[in-house]
Amino acid sequence: MNFKGVLVMTTEEPSKKETITIVGAGPVGALLAVILGRAGYQVNLFESRRDCRKHAIYQGKSNNIALSDRGWLALESVGIAKQIKANAIPMKKRVIHAIDGSLTEQAYGKEEQAIWSVSRADINEQLIDLADTEENVTINFEQRLIQVNFDNACSTLAHGQGAYEVYANYLFGADGAFSKVRRLAQETPRFSYNQAYIPQCYIELTIPANENIEINKRYRMEKEALHIWPRKDFMLIALPNHDGSFTCTLFLNLESKSNTDVSFNSLKTIDEVKGFFEQNFADAMLLLGNPIDEFMQKSAKPLFLVSVDPWVVNNKIALIGDAAHAMLPFYGQGLNCSLEDCRELGILINKHQGDWSKIFSDYQKNRKINADAITELTKQNFIEMSELSGDTLFLLQKKIEAKFQDLYPELWTPLYSMVTFSPHLPYEKALSIGKQQNIIMKKLMSELKQVPDIENCWHESFVYQKMHELVQAQALGNTDI
Amino acid sequence: MNFKGVLVMTTEEPSKKETITIVGAGPVGALLAVILGRAGYQVNLFESRRDCRKHAIYQGKSNNIALSDRGWLALESVGIAKQIKANAIPMKKRVIHAIDGSLTEQAYGKEEQAIWSVSRADINEQLIDLADTEENVTINFEQRLIQVNFDNACSTLAHGQGAYEVYANYLFGADGAFSKVRRLAQETPRFSYNQAYIPQCYIELTIPANENIEINKRYRMEKEALHIWPRKDFMLIALPNHDGSFTCTLFLNLESKSNTDVSFNSLKTIDEVKGFFEQNFADAMLLLGNPIDEFMQKSAKPLFLVSVDPWVVNNKIALIGDAAHAMLPFYGQGLNCSLEDCRELGILINKHQGDWSKIFSDYQKNRKINADAITELTKQNFIEMSELSGDTLFLLQKKIEAKFQDLYPELWTPLYSMVTFSPHLPYEKALSIGKQQNIIMKKLMSELKQVPDIENCWHESFVYQKMHELVQAQALGNTDI
Repeated sequence: MNFKGVLVMTTEEPSKKETITIVGAGPVGALLAVILGRAGYQVNLFESRRDCRKHAIYQGKSNNIALSDRGWLALESVGIAKQIKANAIPMKKRVIHAIDGSLTEQAYGKEEQAIWSVSRADINEQLIDLADTEENVTINFEQRLIQVNFDNACSTLAHGQGAYEVYANYLFGADGAFSKVRRLAQETPRFSYNQAYIPQCYIELTIPANENIEINKRYRMEKEALHIWPRKDFMLIALPNHDGSFTCTLFLNLESKSNTDVSFNSLKTIDEVKGFFEQNFADAMLLLGNPIDEFMQKSAKPLFLVSVDPWVVNNKIALIGDAAHAMLPFYGQGLNCSLEDCRELGILINKHQGDWSKIFSDYQKNRKINADAITELTKQNFIEMSELSGDTLFLLQKKIEAKFQDLYPELWTPLYSMVTFSPHLPYEKALSIGKQQNIIMKKLMSELKQVPDIENCWHESFVYQKMHELVQAQALGNTDI
Repeated sequence: MNFKGVLVMTTEEPSKKETITIVGAGPVGALLAVILGRAGYQVNLFESRRDCRKHAIYQGKSNNIALSDRGWLALESVGIAKQIKANAIPMKKRVIHAIDGSLTEQAYGKEEQAIWSVSRADINEQLIDLADTEENVTINFEQRLIQVNFDNACSTLAHGQGAYEVYANYLFGADGAFSKVRRLAQETPRFSYNQAYIPQCYIELTIPANENIEINKRYRMEKEALHIWPRKDFMLIALPNHDGSFTCTLFLNLESKSNTDVSFNSLKTIDEVKGFFEQNFADAMLLLGNPIDEFMQKSAKPLFLVSVDPWVVNNKIALIGDAAHAMLPFYGQGLNCSLEDCRELGILINKHQGDWSKIFSDYQKNRKINADAITELTKQNFIEMSELSGDTLFLLQKKIEAKFQDLYPELWTPLYSMVTFSPHLPYEKALSIGKQQNIIMKKLMSELKQVPDIENCWHESFVYQKMHELVQAQALGNTDI
């Protein structure tokens, strides 16, 4: 293809291969290109930014991403999981930092289970490298999408001063939370669209590595953990990086709800910011590099979620990943869900042998319901992280659930594990089982609250007998439990 | 102003008057122009279509609109209510057409209360005429909005081949359900946006006037009523026009949910359409002009609702009317709510003496909550119209509520009356009182169902004693009722 001309049309060749345009070469677009290329399609992948392998392009985006079993399964399906895992850091537990500096730990799952801190740049570069080796895939950087023809999947792209058209049989918008394809799709008939900002914004802060020391001693806190400072209306979290540093994220309301309420907008002076950190994150203050300056210099970034319907227009154009379902970051499932979109699409292409009306129909039906479910679960998990993770009774409940799972693995998988470590269980199923579990745990915990010294006898057999009874009763359809 | 040039800038004069741009000269934009002009602002009103007083521009929009007391109050505030009412037709009741052709009536309120069928063209023309006489208002037709600068309320408009910029202190988007101002506002930070299509679509059909006869005998059905053919999954309604005809609207799902389910897409042949009408609307078939042909020729139009937050950007640009809160047509409140937006804005301008940061702050706070409330009520009213209005027990409940209101007017105003005939009661208040009433009526009706022959003794005093007890108990905070 020649991008130099003002208007260059790729000729519609009488080739056997169907052509697919993918807009966006983030991790989702790159993985999708590999899957579609291997399925025999001619793939043109377009990215408006510069090649991330040659230029730093992630300013303003979070350094690291939590990857878990759904993401790994999708990466395994193209044979790249092992390679990416080599640079990832397992986080086997939450370490909860109370306001007095005391630490509590909560395992994410069983002994061997972990969520993984991966570098955004690293996973993207490796996936683009892989796509680059695929015979059927062409990657084009610095090509900006201008227009999509939703009747025929033809798109207009711009490079420098020139614009050109690209014909394709199908087009995927893998262009992320701010998707241009999605914005253009809003002009098509009956396109329902929801974009909702939440009151919280965030900024990133850094806990630097200790210098001049062997790598494993560079970490200023326990390395293989996700650290949380839950403070109810706001929270700080930290994920480990490969170089010994941690990337912290402070989530805080943009505006105060009352005069006494703290928010990004209420913290105006250096003294106010200093007071806020010293009062709420005293132990983190000893580790952070320069949080006051970082806070004063950075502007708070918004958090929003996007939901659209349909995901597929005219059986020609489809949205995938954040473009279809940008979600809040509180379950660490955004990228996992997006990579799962790609893996399941690959399965559907195989199942329907390239019949795209069937592929798209199933894609829309299966993926939309699951993205809606994880979006819902993510809203709930914000409350769990910011509020409940500092609550004694809640931590007790988590321990009881884990022990019950050990005793009766066929009867109980905790919700977090279903979402994170059960990649073959659809999110939607996890959500509905989770609701049933919630009814049981509410009943159980309200009874256990009456038990004297339950903090010390929670592991005794009467607890698990009672829980077993409740599970059995529910299985028999007794809704009065 | 000279619109002939390619780029004409209106000079920013050192005038005392602040300048306001209004985009859209429908009824809302025109009323707003009058209110702002009279408040001392220099108003430039822009409309992309041709002057509706000289050209028919309403193809594809419904002929008539239901106007009720909130709309009238707003029109009264600029002294034009009486003039518009002269051409309006009062509808004092619903006339419900059962499938066997039998008729049931349901008064909308007390004897003298009515909702009014007004011609969309007529109300718009009269409001534009009024705006045209205002010293401070300039109306510019066939000027298409291209861009808005959300920092300074400057806008770019196009006329023919030329484009020009218009400076203003403030800009209002009164450009309706498909608002361009709103679409552009989506690019501003933290703009939450929801646009949701419902499964139903609609087409308009006509019951023509009888010809060659005095005007009042031209109506083929009772003139002063809103006619409904409720059929649960779909419905037909009819509003009277000034010329003796009725404009009917058929609401029906676009797609079938099952194979046996009827929908616009399932009715493909003339025979299928004919069968559908004969089976469901036998009595209407005798009155309608040519429903089968009309159905075959017209394409089903979508129904959607829009919700945004904020309504005001940078204390410079605001949305008003359908641009801010396009709603479903099932409560006949869309235009009423929009005209109320204008009236309340006028009150705020007066109250805050032109301090726009306070005006906009209150406007956003007061109007958003009320628009959300009527949007919610409208969803509920679709069920009432399409399903419950054909239900015997529901009609009985309505009669009991009306009689209780007669007996204890200080204790009870039915929800419909609060929304429609209580223009000083905010929608939000009506919604919350309505919820309380609903609890009482559920309890009462479940008891009355046990009473033998309740259809004939519903007016007896024991019913109203019981209802009075329930109301008192609720007032005392007894939530167990």
